[in-house]
Amino acid sequence: MTPTAQATAGQIAAVRWDGEAPVIIDQRVLPAELLELRLDSSDKVVGAIRSLAVRGAPAIGITGGYGLIVGLEEADRGGLTLATLDAVTERIGHARPTATNLWGAVSRVRDAVASALAENRDWRAPALAAAQDIEREDREACASIGDHGRRLLAGRRRILTHCNTGRLATGGDGTALAVAYALHAAGDLDEVIATESRPLLQGGRLTAWELGRAGVPHRLIVDSAAGAAMASGLVEAVVVGCDRVAANGDTANKIGTYTLAVLARHHGVPFYVCGPLTTFDPHTARGSDIEIEERDPSEVRGFGGRDVAPASSNAWNPAFDVTPAELIEAFITDVGVLRPPYGPAIATALARPG
Amino acid sequence: MTPTAQATAGQIAAVRWDGEAPVIIDQRVLPAELLELRLDSSDKVVGAIRSLAVRGAPAIGITGGYGLIVGLEEADRGGLTLATLDAVTERIGHARPTATNLWGAVSRVRDAVASALAENRDWRAPALAAAQDIEREDREACASIGDHGRRLLAGRRRILTHCNTGRLATGGDGTALAVAYALHAAGDLDEVIATESRPLLQGGRLTAWELGRAGVPHRLIVDSAAGAAMASGLVEAVVVGCDRVAANGDTANKIGTYTLAVLARHHGVPFYVCGPLTTFDPHTARGSDIEIEERDPSEVRGFGGRDVAPASSNAWNPAFDVTPAELIEAFITDVGVLRPPYGPAIATALARPG
Repeated sequence: MTPTAQATAGQIAAVRWDGEAPVIIDQRVLPAELLELRLDSSDKVVGAIRSLAVRGAPAIGITGGYGLIVGLEEADRGGLTLATLDAVTERIGHARPTATNLWGAVSRVRDAVASALAENRDWRAPALAAAQDIEREDREACASIGDHGRRLLAGRRRILTHCNTGRLATGGDGTALAVAYALHAAGDLDEVIATESRPLLQGGRLTAWELGRAGVPHRLIVDSAAGAAMASGLVEAVVVGCDRVAANGDTANKIGTYTLAVLARHHGVPFYVCGPLTTFDPHTARGSDIEIEERDPSEVRGFGGRDVAPASSNAWNPAFDVTPAELIEAFITDVGVLRPPYGPAIATALARPG
Repeated sequence: MTPTAQATAGQIAAVRWDGEAPVIIDQRVLPAELLELRLDSSDKVVGAIRSLAVRGAPAIGITGGYGLIVGLEEADRGGLTLATLDAVTERIGHARPTATNLWGAVSRVRDAVASALAENRDWRAPALAAAQDIEREDREACASIGDHGRRLLAGRRRILTHCNTGRLATGGDGTALAVAYALHAAGDLDEVIATESRPLLQGGRLTAWELGRAGVPHRLIVDSAAGAAMASGLVEAVVVGCDRVAANGDTANKIGTYTLAVLARHHGVPFYVCGPLTTFDPHTARGSDIEIEERDPSEVRGFGGRDVAPASSNAWNPAFDVTPAELIEAFITDVGVLRPPYGPAIATALARPG
């Protein structure tokens, strides 16, 4: 694990396939170090997803898709059975519960493998093709989200975002950050206000790092300063990503997103949720049906392995919260902007031929 | 600077006078270490206040009152002039700009000294008497706030608080935390939800520590989780302290307070501001007149003394924000509960004979 060519090439890829295994940027050690991890076992794939070495719903999906291939190679001792396929799919596809992309991507590769097995073909080529399609489609989706968002936000030059939804979170320019990149490229951006996003500081560590690397003007704030920033007129729009969107538009995203949505409503600032259609889950009716991952309380008591609060203090550490659809001005997706009422808008978008 | 008797005695005093100098608990290193600092020079007094080794508007006031004595002793080379008195008063009284208590306490000791000088008496005894009065009155004010708050909150057993407003922030049980201590003592408290209060983590480091030490049930959350906590029904009231209350009730307090006030309003949760009358400033008409201290951006870029965000990223670090009076359900003060309209309520309270 040494700094790679990425460090000098100026380009970053949260996940790439090196021919045999997915290689990720270890996001736990950014920005202090730019290290890659090669996930050449299913344990490493699951471990990297659980530990947030790779994070961001789309990037997790891409990693899961490639990771399934690694897991199947490991399990294929002279022949793969459907039962083994499903066991490996279950394990990798449920490494984290909240984002729908992970299960979606892993199932898609699984289905390609199952078809091959049913036809007595080797599973490897179709599996890799499916995983590569997932990565390519996500890159294209990011570009499309950026484009739709740039046009929708025209004139709103100061945008606040949460967590990291950029090049480190996806296979392309990102979801919410793709909008920032597109605005910046068009000369239509003054500044991104980035919340640091405790407990794991994806905003401070990752968003600030990738925006700085790309030369995009930005200012970091502690999460609780979002209200003061809006009251001070620093924010003309809020753009966030999403980990799972229910059929009615209720949206699970990084803890703190809901707080921003309430603040935006109070200040009359539009609140936009950005994500590819792969993040929309028609099988989840509403927000209260979304399983919210609770992570270890030690993440709240400290950071980076260092405790600051007493070890004896209880802490509550939901990784996500749910923003009700009525606080969302619009969804910016790869197939365009979705407006309320979201039930029919989402159903129509998902029903389009892909 | 070694752990003192406080560590075992079970009692803590944010500030105490040892006969010659104020001795404070160094709040920068809690909870890892319980150290005392003896502020035996005006540089140390100003440094301790600026660096937040001592913090909390009332505790800063008490430190400033005693600290002025140290500064005057230093300046009194065979006789103190009014000009020197005023220079030292200015320096210590404006070590930090936002809390009104500091200037109030330092001026009060200054006035006692000025009277002594005018009457050709030694300034030391009246100065110490004034400083000790400030400490005693604050302890009594805390007890009174706790008592008024306990009665006002009756039945609200789950309270959310921000920053640290307890024994470490005052000369007594605190302001907002005095209410928690009083509810707990009466058997009327289920849990305190404590926000960690980035960037300096007074909630995670100090509130969690002192509540744990006192056996008060509590749960720590990241600041951004306050919305999710309210939406989940975990919060029946929000109680916060204040650094300066304007004549119209607009309130400056730790950054993030305003965000909590907006969230509380959205969820129909009452939002109470707790503080002694010494925190009310009739000379400041409204919130927009309050000077808000902006602190070093490195506090936002780092965590617990460790850099986490890129050093090249801009950051915005206001230490306080302003909550408009209309979001405040009531003030819980040492002279009782103040209700809207706050202009007359505050004026009446301040006009009472002390």
